[in-house]
Formats: sequence, structure tokens, C-alpha cells
Amino acid sequence: MSSGKAISKAVIKRLPRYYRFLGELLRNGTVRISSRELSERMGLTASQIRQDLNCFGGFGQQGYGYNIQELHEEIGRILGLDQRTDVILIGAGNLGRAVANHMDFDQRGFRLVGIFDQSPELVGQEIKGIRILHTDELERFCKARSPAAAVLCIPKTATKAISDRLIPLGIKGFWNFSHYDLLDRHSGIVVENVHMSDSLMTLSYEIKDLMEKDE
Amino acid sequence: MSSGKAISKAVIKRLPRYYRFLGELLRNGTVRISSRELSERMGLTASQIRQDLNCFGGFGQQGYGYNIQELHEEIGRILGLDQRTDVILIGAGNLGRAVANHMDFDQRGFRLVGIFDQSPELVGQEIKGIRILHTDELERFCKARSPAAAVLCIPKTATKAISDRLIPLGIKGFWNFSHYDLLDRHSGIVVENVHMSDSLMTLSYEIKDLMEKDE
Repeated sequence: MSSGKAISKAVIKRLPRYYRFLGELLRNGTVRISSRELSERMGLTASQIRQDLNCFGGFGQQGYGYNIQELHEEIGRILGLDQRTDVILIGAGNLGRAVANHMDFDQRGFRLVGIFDQSPELVGQEIKGIRILHTDELERFCKARSPAAAVLCIPKTATKAISDRLIPLGIKGFWNFSHYDLLDRHSGIVVENVHMSDSLMTLSYEIKDLMEKDE
Repeated sequence: MSSGKAISKAVIKRLPRYYRFLGELLRNGTVRISSRELSERMGLTASQIRQDLNCFGGFGQQGYGYNIQELHEEIGRILGLDQRTDVILIGAGNLGRAVANHMDFDQRGFRLVGIFDQSPELVGQEIKGIRILHTDELERFCKARSPAAAVLCIPKTATKAISDRLIPLGIKGFWNFSHYDLLDRHSGIVVENVHMSDSLMTLSYEIKDLMEKDE
């Protein structure tokens, strides 16, 4: 089923959130949910939810609500969470270590197969049973294992050089935590930039706005 | 100047990105930039940029482009980056430690004043010169120091209990890294949820979509 192709980018952006909420309902043993209930939990309007979920087929039945398990599985399929794309992590400092330990790659469509750093103190250590290799070994490793994705937890100044090196080695997808905006201009690659500082600045704005309203 | 209040939410969401790009240009010694040049660097259209920046006054002059320093400062003011809101961090595990070490709070409108954890092994340790306190001390600390914001790097299951405890202690803004969606339903609080797993699932979708197009 390739209905995924017809889904708009705005809907795609909301799918991970639906997936999370439905997963939680499933774990709580809920079987069906109405768009109204789901909307209250998610802070969206019921009509927004009906529109979104109608994009990929008839999971809702008038008066019966959605079958949570079917909907959860279908959204997982659309997101490709069953793919197990091999991913490598570049940068095993605080942030890289937190990402490796904190993220459940297996549940999100990936399998973490290699960790790289250039610091002699980190090379040889293990994170989650994976031995950290020196970045000099990237070429050899990628030729042998062909990972398709890379997580970048490296300084801004190193990002362009590393991505320029990884693309010819077959990396197609970047999960970029550096403060450098990787643009997916090279045809044939995709990028998710995680700008934690942008989120913090947005919070700064929201607090300021809240305080001004209070005055 | 309270022009900020008239700015739409969509524009606000883009401001941190403008701020970052303009800061980089400043550091490189660039003085002015046209909307066309800025659009090429940022991957937006020039007319989008002109529309956005017109929201807060006459920084662009036909044929002269934008004065980068003025624009950067004004966006920083709108975002409230000069506020120095006192913020506490709850959860000093891998992720909390990475956030404390990696984020430049001072440059983003905040000042990190306290770090809390409930693990006896972590309490008493220091991160960035701040001694980790036990979460039992939250009440005492908040009464003495009145922080207005909290970063949550705690398990999903602990998030609601902690936020319910922090709101009466005067916390107005939450930067939430847990996999629990804090909704800003309580009037008088604002929330930025950082869903790293959503971003990873979006990347999973994009890789799948890319591979399907290649076939």
C-alpha cells in the first residue's frame, strides 16, 4: 500500500504525535476512541483529526470511533517504523551519549550500528554495547556495513565537512543536532534538523509574552 | 515597544531561525544582506522573508537590503533573549547533563540556577559548577529563588506529577524533553515540548519516501 505518497506534508508532521498518543491508549488497554475524545487529549479540533485520519483510509466508523490498534499499526507502517534502517552516530560527547542512551532507535525505524568520535579518550569506550570508533574509520565502516542514516552530534563547525564526507559513502538521511542548518539541497538526501536552541528561544518569547499579558 | 504582540504565531516560529542566520552573518563581518541572498541561504522564498520581516518595522530598504545588526538585535528583543529568566533543570541523567552542558542558556534568555535529581548517586555532584540537589528540596529552593522556568529531563511517568508540583511553586514556562505531552491548559503557563522521537520518526518516513521514489 503506497497511500503514503498522497499525504500532505502538514499531515505527515502530525503523524508521529498521533502514533505516540495511540500507543499510549493501546498500552492502557483502550480499544476504540472517538475523534472528539482524541481531540480533547491531543489539543486539536475533532474535525482536524477526522480530516487527517481520513487521508489514509476508513479507520473511523460513524458512531463507533476509531479502532486504535489498526490505526496505530497503519500509521507505524506509513512512518516506516518497521524498516530497521542502519544508522551511525557521529560524536560521542555529552549530547551523542544522551541520544544513544535515551532514544529507542529500534522502535523508530532504525538500528544503531556504529558510533564515531575523533577524541582519543572516547575511542574504545562503549555505549550500549557499541565500541566507539575513530572517525578515520568512517570510510572503511560504511563500505563494509552500508548504513543509510547518520545522527550528527558534533560541533557546528564540523558539520558541513562531515556531511560532505558521508554523502558519497551512501548516507541518505541525517538527524542533525548541530547548530548548523543542513539543507537537503543535494538531491537524494533527507535531513531532520533538531534545533534545541530554537525551541529554547521560542520558550523565551512565550514567557515574555505571558509576562506582558499579566501586567 | 510591544510590536511583538501583533506578530502571528507562524512568524514567531521562524524568528529563532532568522536570529541564528543573522548571528552567523554578523560573526562573518557581513553588514547588509538582500532578501534574495538571505532567502538562498535559508531555503525560503524572498517574498516570504520580506513579508516576515515587514511585520516588525522598516529594516529593509529597497535596493539596500537589511542592516544585519539592527535586525538581529530587534529579533533578539522580540524573542526576549535579554530577559535572563531563572530556570531550573529537573533530571540530571544523560539527557539532563547533555542539555545543561550543551545549551547556552545565557544567550537564549535564561540563567540556569538549580539542578535537581532524586538519585542519591547524582545528588551532590556538580554540573557546570551547580551542585545537584535532591528533588525533595524543590519547594524550599523555589520559595527562596523564585525561578520562573523549568527544564524537564525526566521519565514520561514522572512528568505530570512534577509539573503539578512546580506550577504552584511559580514555574510559568516548561521546556519539556520527556515523552509526555505537557499541554498548556493551565492558564498562565507556557510549554515547549521537545519530542526527539517525533523528529526521528519523521526522518524514518522521509527515508522510506526517498527509497520508494528511487525504485
